[in-house]
Amino acid sequence: MVTRTVDLRSDTVTKPTEAMRAAMACADVDDDVLGADPTAQRFEEEIARIMGKEVALFVPSGTMGNLISVLVHCDVRGSEVILGDNSHIHIYENGGISTIGGVHPKTVKNNPDGTMDIDQIEAAIRNPDGALYYPTTRLICLENTHANCGGKCISVDYTDKVGELARKHDLKLHIDGARIFNASVALGVPVHRLVQAADSVSVCLSKGLGAPVGSVIVGNKDFITKAKRLRKTLGGGMRQVGILCAAAFVALQDNVAKLADDHKKAKIFADGLKEVKQLSVDASSVETNMVFFDINEGSLLSPGSLCQALEKFGVLAMPVSSTSVRVVIHHQISESDIYYALTCIKQAVQEIILPNGTAK
Amino acid sequence: MVTRTVDLRSDTVTKPTEAMRAAMACADVDDDVLGADPTAQRFEEEIARIMGKEVALFVPSGTMGNLISVLVHCDVRGSEVILGDNSHIHIYENGGISTIGGVHPKTVKNNPDGTMDIDQIEAAIRNPDGALYYPTTRLICLENTHANCGGKCISVDYTDKVGELARKHDLKLHIDGARIFNASVALGVPVHRLVQAADSVSVCLSKGLGAPVGSVIVGNKDFITKAKRLRKTLGGGMRQVGILCAAAFVALQDNVAKLADDHKKAKIFADGLKEVKQLSVDASSVETNMVFFDINEGSLLSPGSLCQALEKFGVLAMPVSSTSVRVVIHHQISESDIYYALTCIKQAVQEIILPNGTAK
Amino acid sequence: MVTRTVDLRSDTVTKPTEAMRAAMACADVDDDVLGADPTAQRFEEEIARIMGKEVALFVPSGTMGNLISVLVHCDVRGSEVILGDNSHIHIYENGGISTIGGVHPKTVKNNPDGTMDIDQIEAAIRNPDGALYYPTTRLICLENTHANCGGKCISVDYTDKVGELARKHDLKLHIDGARIFNASVALGVPVHRLVQAADSVSVCLSKGLGAPVGSVIVGNKDFITKAKRLRKTLGGGMRQVGILCAAAFVALQDNVAKLADDHKKAKIFADGLKEVKQLSVDASSVETNMVFFDINEGSLLSPGSLCQALEKFGVLAMPVSSTSVRVVIHHQISESDIYYALTCIKQAVQEIILPNGTAK
Amino acid sequence: MVTRTVDLRSDTVTKPTEAMRAAMACADVDDDVLGADPTAQRFEEEIARIMGKEVALFVPSGTMGNLISVLVHCDVRGSEVILGDNSHIHIYENGGISTIGGVHPKTVKNNPDGTMDIDQIEAAIRNPDGALYYPTTRLICLENTHANCGGKCISVDYTDKVGELARKHDLKLHIDGARIFNASVALGVPVHRLVQAADSVSVCLSKGLGAPVGSVIVGNKDFITKAKRLRKTLGGGMRQVGILCAAAFVALQDNVAKLADDHKKAKIFADGLKEVKQLSVDASSVETNMVFFDINEGSLLSPGSLCQALEKFGVLAMPVSSTSVRVVIHHQISESDIYYALTCIKQAVQEIILPNGTAK
Repeated sequence: MVTRTVDLRSDTVTKPTEAMRAAMACADVDDDVLGADPTAQRFEEEIARIMGKEVALFVPSGTMGNLISVLVHCDVRGSEVILGDNSHIHIYENGGISTIGGVHPKTVKNNPDGTMDIDQIEAAIRNPDGALYYPTTRLICLENTHANCGGKCISVDYTDKVGELARKHDLKLHIDGARIFNASVALGVPVHRLVQAADSVSVCLSKGLGAPVGSVIVGNKDFITKAKRLRKTLGGGMRQVGILCAAAFVALQDNVAKLADDHKKAKIFADGLKEVKQLSVDASSVETNMVFFDINEGSLLSPGSLCQALEKFGVLAMPVSSTSVRVVIHHQISESDIYYALTCIKQAVQEIILPNGTAK
Repeated sequence: MVTRTVDLRSDTVTKPTEAMRAAMACADVDDDVLGADPTAQRFEEEIARIMGKEVALFVPSGTMGNLISVLVHCDVRGSEVILGDNSHIHIYENGGISTIGGVHPKTVKNNPDGTMDIDQIEAAIRNPDGALYYPTTRLICLENTHANCGGKCISVDYTDKVGELARKHDLKLHIDGARIFNASVALGVPVHRLVQAADSVSVCLSKGLGAPVGSVIVGNKDFITKAKRLRKTLGGGMRQVGILCAAAFVALQDNVAKLADDHKKAKIFADGLKEVKQLSVDASSVETNMVFFDINEGSLLSPGSLCQALEKFGVLAMPVSSTSVRVVIHHQISESDIYYALTCIKQAVQEIILPNGTAK
Repeated sequence: MVTRTVDLRSDTVTKPTEAMRAAMACADVDDDVLGADPTAQRFEEEIARIMGKEVALFVPSGTMGNLISVLVHCDVRGSEVILGDNSHIHIYENGGISTIGGVHPKTVKNNPDGTMDIDQIEAAIRNPDGALYYPTTRLICLENTHANCGGKCISVDYTDKVGELARKHDLKLHIDGARIFNASVALGVPVHRLVQAADSVSVCLSKGLGAPVGSVIVGNKDFITKAKRLRKTLGGGMRQVGILCAAAFVALQDNVAKLADDHKKAKIFADGLKEVKQLSVDASSVETNMVFFDINEGSLLSPGSLCQALEKFGVLAMPVSSTSVRVVIHHQISESDIYYALTCIKQAVQEIILPNGTAK
Repeated sequence: MVTRTVDLRSDTVTKPTEAMRAAMACADVDDDVLGADPTAQRFEEEIARIMGKEVALFVPSGTMGNLISVLVHCDVRGSEVILGDNSHIHIYENGGISTIGGVHPKTVKNNPDGTMDIDQIEAAIRNPDGALYYPTTRLICLENTHANCGGKCISVDYTDKVGELARKHDLKLHIDGARIFNASVALGVPVHRLVQAADSVSVCLSKGLGAPVGSVIVGNKDFITKAKRLRKTLGGGMRQVGILCAAAFVALQDNVAKLADDHKKAKIFADGLKEVKQLSVDASSVETNMVFFDINEGSLLSPGSLCQALEKFGVLAMPVSSTSVRVVIHHQISESDIYYALTCIKQAVQEIILPNGTAK
């Protein structure tokens, strides 16, 4: 019988805290579609200030935040966006920028650290001047931290350089900052500085920050004006949304500070995995709250079988390829949970590779 | 100084009740994108049962509910939808079915009661059999109650007939049931019977039912499977959405029963307006919670000036054309509010038409 | 045995004349996609001059001409076009402006003369200023002559008024001028004057003008620059297209002058139909080269049965509704063909309504 | 003064032969949109037979052929296509499959020989089974010969293997066969065998085959039925198109046999370039009618300056990157033209690198 659950699949699985629930219970709300919700307004003002941008807009999800941002920057038919071949927008968002937005993606190879070579980005830019057969590049997208690259942080310096490149070619820069606060904390750089070069940023509130629902996009007034209309088109305009913003407010105030702990716990987890000889992990590459580890070649284990075995102990992790498993730490995972999970992993590995042993 | 606010612009302006706030504060939630939120699941099961359909899906707004429904039924390029020329989908949803979904709308004239002539619907159907220059009709949309037609109810009999027509031509039938519970209550017909002929229905939870956020779409399993994926594409997948579903649950339990009162209050309001001789209202046409009234020709009043004057008394109403004003009643508008609003209207009319009078 | 064919289905069925064939056989051509075809260039210059616009672009069809024009004027996502509910673009072009272009159509009722009431057009314009739920009107479309309204001509005066309205609201005006030369001839107005108020016009070369293939769009340089790129996107860029332009050149020179005869023959045809008592035709409404006639109520005839019976005589006409038949005259229909067709119609009617008679 | 022109920019620059002009001058034509053009029908039957597919459809261009093919196979919203990162569809067709068709492209790296690694194709396939965040792969595209990979031929064996992979995953296979006859001739494999594994093929008639205008797509009846309707939507339906088909017929009969000579001349050209020490060319990689050569590092030449200098001699070539130049041979380039062009290149190189020399 499972008596304990340690859900390490994603930092989206957090439960609202007591403070969030209290905030939701007494939030001052009104119809936000009519522009009247005071809590939504205060939240949007606050997050815009923190991010160093003119205005902000609350949206139901990070996917909508990215979709709106790309579509607003690429609002003219025949637009192209340059983005990483391993980016969340390209891989995990249903291809919505094309299938819903008609924007053509031009991918550049993501380096293991989440960046793309700047000369490759520049080579990918197409600004037709009389050319008849090219779409027009209008946007570059970065992702920080970069989920598919192990939660790596993108530096201020790199971001600024891409920003310069964008301005040089009259392009916009959007940052998928689903976990931008993790990057800010890990790099020790204020978040507004980290996104200074960007024209727009989407920030997820329901990942490491632990809010129950929502993301926010920030940018200048013109961008947000267009974004608000597109949010309505997509069906992301919500009525008494101050309820959700109230919780997000608490998330901002209480949980940013906890991200450093998440990163520390991720390190502990990665270090602990080194002891399991069937698994490989590069602990030095763990920069934020994500740990990716590999099953060693020739092992009887598979990501699927390992995660299934772990599930019996109440430990949930996510197979992400034919050889690797992803674990994500959040503020409701304690150090004790980490040690428990490590113990269970060792146990599960034993069970699978010694199927006739007493453990089974 | 305004000391009282009576917001009659829409039934979307309700505030969550104490019961809703309590339910949100203690809702059992989890990551709904991962399919794990127990409150969302229970809510979706319950509303599917009430609506008499196989499954349900919670979405952030009625606009998204309609957009998803039209796009799922019209998932093949080159599709056409038949809908009322005065329908909410055609007029008030940013043309999203075309601009986002590439679906071609073919409008049929809405009668004053919200219906379209069935022979006109049939004449509009285009099912190319070798024809090269027609899009393919795949869907008919009805709206019940019909907002732009004064909140009129569409009968079971009419709905069934349109359903028969749809099946005869191998089309789907979607009902924009933003206010379908108002229709059910006004007609005295169980809501599941009212939508029996439909393949899908969108139901708004944050209008007359008073939930803070959200709508729901219902249909068969295949429809909802596709809808869930499209919801993700549009960015409508939300994490601990059980918070919102908990409030919607209370809305369903507590507020359906109050709709009859809303309709009664709307009647009182309409009857009261008859006394104002600068205004015209057809009280007999008030079937649910909406009252539309006209400024008489030749009057010094305009919808804009009247609503502005009313605002000073804290009474909010919505000008909807160059001659008419819309008022919507919800459960947080008391009978006393109605009488107060009527008094203010009389006062405001006096002030405008007698600008030199003492009232001003 | 049929020894004679009189194809009255459309003016698209003309055969290239000897002069056209000769012109094609010796046309000086090169790669037009590389901008090098001299015949295409000369043709585009000439037609631009005739139409009174800066530049012209040859396209494979009228459908592409209209599609490109609407999409260039509505190149920003979220655009709406106002057009007649009976217009060719709305009815007969596969809904391409939506299904391919994502443009939302807002129809206004076509009067029997092909116009739309100007106040209804104005009422349909939506230029959101802060409005979140409306698409943005960017274009008005007229059709001249109006095919579905019997080939009626739209006057200079009306066109100018719609042009004024468009400019007042910062909209563009496109004219689907598939048969604009017919209108010019019938009205006795130079074609450039007739389209003076328009930002773009599409003109069909393979209808009354008799060229084998092609249409042309005209407008200012910015419009045509964008149009050229979109033509390439759609696949309408053709290589040694001077072949087709050479024929179109002959069409322009030789066949415009013949349109007056076509109109005269259409009158003769309509007058002749008056003698057939099972049929109704309003000869006074025949303004150009089209004749629509109705089967009288109660007749044993149907458009389908009549056209089938006519086919046996080699006379081809097109049923266009459950009660009416369309006939179109072009330069290869002689007066003798007209009288032959009339005779056949009388014969066919007899055969159908007297099925036991000797004629059968 | 230039007295001779040798246009090596593309094989699209051919002029129609006398035989083609004669064929066009006497072609038996009718309205192909009404399905009545006998020459178009015969041509489509013949090319379908040659390609070994059920039916064929004439289209104005290769771009439209590819666009229609991708869109027909991906006719359901949310589709993804796998194609080479260096493919013509991805690079040179305005991103139309996304910007017009809403199809999401997933690129796989093209090897220098134009293939993609089959295991990488397989890894890129996404057939969601409950997955919410992936588009659905529906199509794989190959290109044969592969223009951006130097006109390399894709083998029967490789094509068959990709076909097997496609069938295994219930995907379609489209071949952009703009120059498939060049591949057929170079490989010594009948063209129908080369495309046997494909569900659809687009074949260009106005490249090496020398027809003035047009491409053709082939596939089964269901595919072509849908393609025909989409052709109409895009505006590719043309009236007396038999004119163009008559020329294409001659191209098929007369010019396929000349492709072997084009390939031989391309070899001669490449071999000749070896003598120019400022340039690099891998003559062994020249498989068909294309030669790509590089400016050696450190040279004073650039592709632009070289091509400009050549233009003065009437020799036209195309710079395709910052270091390389493309030359394409067709049936109207004689062996003498090749030697002339080589001489001019040597001369031009001298002029540029010895700007003070007597040559200038």
